[in-house]
Amino acid sequence: MKPILVRGQPLAQGALPAVCIPLVGKTAPALLSEARAAAAKQPHLVEWRVDFFEGIADASAVAGLAQELRTAAGVPLLFTRRSRREGGEAIALDEPQVADLYRVVCERQVADLVDVEMESPLVAPMVAAAGQHGVPTVLSFHDFQRTPPLQELLARFRQAKDLGADVGKLAVMPRSKADVLVLLQATLQASETLDIPVAGMAMGPLGAVSRVCGGVFGSALTFAVGQAASAPGQIPIDELRAALAVLRSAG
Amino acid sequence: MKPILVRGQPLAQGALPAVCIPLVGKTAPALLSEARAAAAKQPHLVEWRVDFFEGIADASAVAGLAQELRTAAGVPLLFTRRSRREGGEAIALDEPQVADLYRVVCERQVADLVDVEMESPLVAPMVAAAGQHGVPTVLSFHDFQRTPPLQELLARFRQAKDLGADVGKLAVMPRSKADVLVLLQATLQASETLDIPVAGMAMGPLGAVSRVCGGVFGSALTFAVGQAASAPGQIPIDELRAALAVLRSAG
Repeated sequence: MKPILVRGQPLAQGALPAVCIPLVGKTAPALLSEARAAAAKQPHLVEWRVDFFEGIADASAVAGLAQELRTAAGVPLLFTRRSRREGGEAIALDEPQVADLYRVVCERQVADLVDVEMESPLVAPMVAAAGQHGVPTVLSFHDFQRTPPLQELLARFRQAKDLGADVGKLAVMPRSKADVLVLLQATLQASETLDIPVAGMAMGPLGAVSRVCGGVFGSALTFAVGQAASAPGQIPIDELRAALAVLRSAG
Repeated sequence: MKPILVRGQPLAQGALPAVCIPLVGKTAPALLSEARAAAAKQPHLVEWRVDFFEGIADASAVAGLAQELRTAAGVPLLFTRRSRREGGEAIALDEPQVADLYRVVCERQVADLVDVEMESPLVAPMVAAAGQHGVPTVLSFHDFQRTPPLQELLARFRQAKDLGADVGKLAVMPRSKADVLVLLQATLQASETLDIPVAGMAMGPLGAVSRVCGGVFGSALTFAVGQAASAPGQIPIDELRAALAVLRSAG
């Protein structure tokens, strides 16, 4: 069981999974309000989904706001641009501009973790830039259409590790309950064989069970709704935590 | 998703899993007190584990008490003798005497379901006797040492069906988290391929997650602690229900 480390400290005191609230506001005031509401829920982490933010094109303003959001939330901040192809919002930046944005955020030390998509053509330089500034990376892969077979999921987790990830993350869309078990199996195997923490989740209503039980099978991270979901199947944080507490006291 | 039927009505209004509280008292007063306490928790079913009962040798008294327990619990009663070999208590009866006890209980219509172990040498006549009196059977198999491989678990579920079960039930001991996934996979596949409801559970702390999530993967029944557990890893009913409610609202 490998928890995610932030500045050398394990999230959630090392318990799996850490619970992350995504911030999906479009404007700075909306985001600050969301971050304050998140603080009241005491997640272990917040994720700023910057692809929702209208001001994404101004890197310096983004970095300043990241700092403010982290302060408002009172917990570590995961900085994430999700691409359209992997379920994110359309943005005005091309990939080199996204890489520049990440570089500024890492240089200014305003994020505790950054999420980089393994499929980005600039994944290697983005990971290198984050590493240069000591910011750990979550290397992620999302499939909103299906759940790839077990071997493919395991290869994705290995790819994250090989690319230098501090955390490997897969989110897939199940078409059956059997797909959910495949995702859990891949997460378990990766957590037992790789030397980095991993996170696995099956999306949508069919996959919601994975957001509750994933930690039992080695997933170091789960996303819960504070005010608004960032992906289908996320559960309100109070409910999710109640269910996690039951599993923890029983297991 | 096939719920368990009692007198033609689906338990838990057809939701999976139905929640069952085991009654494990040694004396009639203890059992009646346990049944009344169970009633307050509103399970969908209670299971009388008659192998715990000191008075098991008096079939007529057992039948009378079954009736009283069912009335006190206010929900359907599953009548179960668990053998030593499958995790039960030592009793003074030999197998033909157990079969006689079941016959009396079925004749007198004081149980809504009876649990018969597939491994009993008298499984066929016991199922036949229950059927003759219109009492549905749960055909069960327990392995307290290990989790048999997937194909073996699937064969056990099929065996239950072939022996005439109304419900097939497997409880296994996981030695790893991977074993828990194997049990869930077997339960899911059996629930999708057999035309009877099935129940699958992994025991002990490692398996506790299966008592919460099994229903998502087709398990029609889960056992929860009212006052005392009947097998390792059972969760207090209030906590279990809270977790089930979260899964239900999300999934």
